[in-house]
Amino acid sequence: MSAWSAWLAAQAGAREEAGLRRVLRPRPASDETIDLAGNDYLGLSRDPVVTAAAADAALMWGAGSGASRLVTGTLRLHEHLEQELASYTGQPAALVMSTGYHANLALVTALADRDTLVVSDAHIHASLVDAVRLSRAEVVVVPHSDVAAVRRALVASDKRALVLTESIYSVLGDEAPLVELAAVCAEHDAMLVVDEAHGLGVHGPGLVHGRGLAGLEHVVVTMTLSKSLGSQGGAVLGPPALVEHLVNKARPFIFDTALAPAPTAGALAALGVLRARPELVDVVRRRVVDLAAALGVEPPAGAVLSVSMPSPQVAVAAQAAALEHGLRIGCFRPPSVPDGISRLRITVNAGVSDDDWGRATQVLVAVVKEHA
Amino acid sequence: MSAWSAWLAAQAGAREEAGLRRVLRPRPASDETIDLAGNDYLGLSRDPVVTAAAADAALMWGAGSGASRLVTGTLRLHEHLEQELASYTGQPAALVMSTGYHANLALVTALADRDTLVVSDAHIHASLVDAVRLSRAEVVVVPHSDVAAVRRALVASDKRALVLTESIYSVLGDEAPLVELAAVCAEHDAMLVVDEAHGLGVHGPGLVHGRGLAGLEHVVVTMTLSKSLGSQGGAVLGPPALVEHLVNKARPFIFDTALAPAPTAGALAALGVLRARPELVDVVRRRVVDLAAALGVEPPAGAVLSVSMPSPQVAVAAQAAALEHGLRIGCFRPPSVPDGISRLRITVNAGVSDDDWGRATQVLVAVVKEHA
Ligand SMILES: Cc1ncc(COP(=O)(O)O)c(C=O)c1O
Ligand SMILES: Cc1ncc(COP(=O)(O)O)c(C=O)c1O
Repeated sequence: MSAWSAWLAAQAGAREEAGLRRVLRPRPASDETIDLAGNDYLGLSRDPVVTAAAADAALMWGAGSGASRLVTGTLRLHEHLEQELASYTGQPAALVMSTGYHANLALVTALADRDTLVVSDAHIHASLVDAVRLSRAEVVVVPHSDVAAVRRALVASDKRALVLTESIYSVLGDEAPLVELAAVCAEHDAMLVVDEAHGLGVHGPGLVHGRGLAGLEHVVVTMTLSKSLGSQGGAVLGPPALVEHLVNKARPFIFDTALAPAPTAGALAALGVLRARPELVDVVRRRVVDLAAALGVEPPAGAVLSVSMPSPQVAVAAQAAALEHGLRIGCFRPPSVPDGISRLRITVNAGVSDDDWGRATQVLVAVVKEHA
Repeated sequence: MSAWSAWLAAQAGAREEAGLRRVLRPRPASDETIDLAGNDYLGLSRDPVVTAAAADAALMWGAGSGASRLVTGTLRLHEHLEQELASYTGQPAALVMSTGYHANLALVTALADRDTLVVSDAHIHASLVDAVRLSRAEVVVVPHSDVAAVRRALVASDKRALVLTESIYSVLGDEAPLVELAAVCAEHDAMLVVDEAHGLGVHGPGLVHGRGLAGLEHVVVTMTLSKSLGSQGGAVLGPPALVEHLVNKARPFIFDTALAPAPTAGALAALGVLRARPELVDVVRRRVVDLAAALGVEPPAGAVLSVSMPSPQVAVAAQAAALEHGLRIGCFRPPSVPDGISRLRITVNAGVSDDDWGRATQVLVAVVKEHA
């Protein structure tokens, strides 16, 4: 056996033993199962206006964009989406990338290097963690949402500093102290990077906008187009000088093929729906509050409900029980959780009918009661 | 002015002074300009079968896949594409990602760590360079296509080793010594990673297949779906044990939303066209040979013709002259070139009509004559 085969086998054995082996479960285009595991919070990935726009774009612009953005891959469609994203979120400029992961990699690696300090929240998403590693910057990881610790880290250094946060955290659905973080950053001449992956849509134009921080020069936003916008891709939003810098310096932007026409147009149409139907945001909020009450947990700021489970095995069993009753929910286990606690992860989706929503709530109450 | 604004301004000033400022030029859905700058080598991004498949998928599956692959983002469509990619390229298994960049990041970071040696060709793509940086592995960069240097690096280390190459290099369009590299890797128990971004399609099922290396346990392939397959996304191909390892360990796979339905279906349809019309490969080859002869350069192994220019400024001027005559071509300047030489980069595209191809050849001969 080769060294690599032996190593792969040993790794697989260790996973198996720890009960942590994960497998892919392909799903059909539609079935009877209610999906409360995905991040399509507003149900827009299936909205007929959105899917028609995506389909038309594939026919009109092609299945791919054919090249990187700096070669001939920039379409007027990208430009249009960038204008709309900036306008909707109250930012001066935007740059679209092919994934939200790329957006975080691009932003952080183009700004940070060995001469930069990055202050990172302990719960930050994997894409930001990877971005920081790739940048080779000095990193201080601070306890979750601990503004005083951020201040101490900034005071202790005289490097150019970036502070990384999510507006709504992906695992627990809690909200970051954005106003306080922005104030501390302003005080210490640092830049605040806010990943709005789970804030956009669920909070309309996002929490940076909602907290009056949109357009501030030292508050930069990243996002994905794959959750509330129901599509694929990512974006960085901020001052035009920053966007120009990324166009010239960000390797994960420069050396990557431009986002395909269909997801570009899909996200653009989703923004239109979001503007036209702000009540979708209220549906999500109401369902979050109702479901949290039914399950006896605190209503989170976002649309992710997190229910602690006593062990990874029980979490998996609860997830299987929900599926047996026609409900797909998520399950986060080590090593994907920041604090080692296994959880059911239930995402609220405004695209689910009222009937299905009622049924889902009943199933969840029963499953959680049985497993908590 | 804040520290960040001052820093961004200084960086912009330096770019301006060096004449290296790059700007995005949005293009319309179609115009009279012939595109010999993109990487849609077989013209499949505009093939009606491919665009219809992409459009239908958006309508049937939604504009986005809604979640990461391990949550509920894996569609039967992804599974189908993975089976077809593996079957077409003669590999036992495949794993689809949302970009080719992600495929390289995922593969290298899931295999390599501080206990690994990575031997990397000097001309390797930015995504592989970033992947190695992110992995924290020990790296030896060897001179371009220097098999003896690869052997020396492997002999000098007893770590598990990865050797990185492209089958057809993206900048110069030259072919890697794949058979020799695979032999050296087998001798020294190393794994060979071959990025087929520019080999797939241009050489049918790719050069790993073409050189009889497909399915060897120690030869792993990465690819993008955004060039010859005319779509978006990426994939890793190799042994099932490797794919299982990536599903469990590769952060850029696990923590990223699954590829959207439209580009997934587009790539799948493109594979079908490629199987049904192998003569497309001959069209590309004939055009490469003819154009190389007309321009007085060696015909490259791939579909990228690279023409050296005396300076970045002349390269930009030549590119502008071609555009004035209705032809989009690429222009690679420092720092995007491995050897500091500015170049026109002309990509052959089987989707261009014979008439347009004749016109393009005339323009190119005149422009190169004037600027070389
Ligand atoms: C907080 C956060 N940031 C970034 C991403 C990455 O976005 P994408 O899936 O578009 O790559 C995700 C999830 O996928 C996320 O939850
Ligand atoms: C050799 C090579 N590898 C990987 C990539 C990245 O693929 P993608 O554009 O799908 O991210 C590219 C170009 O974009 C490339 O030229």
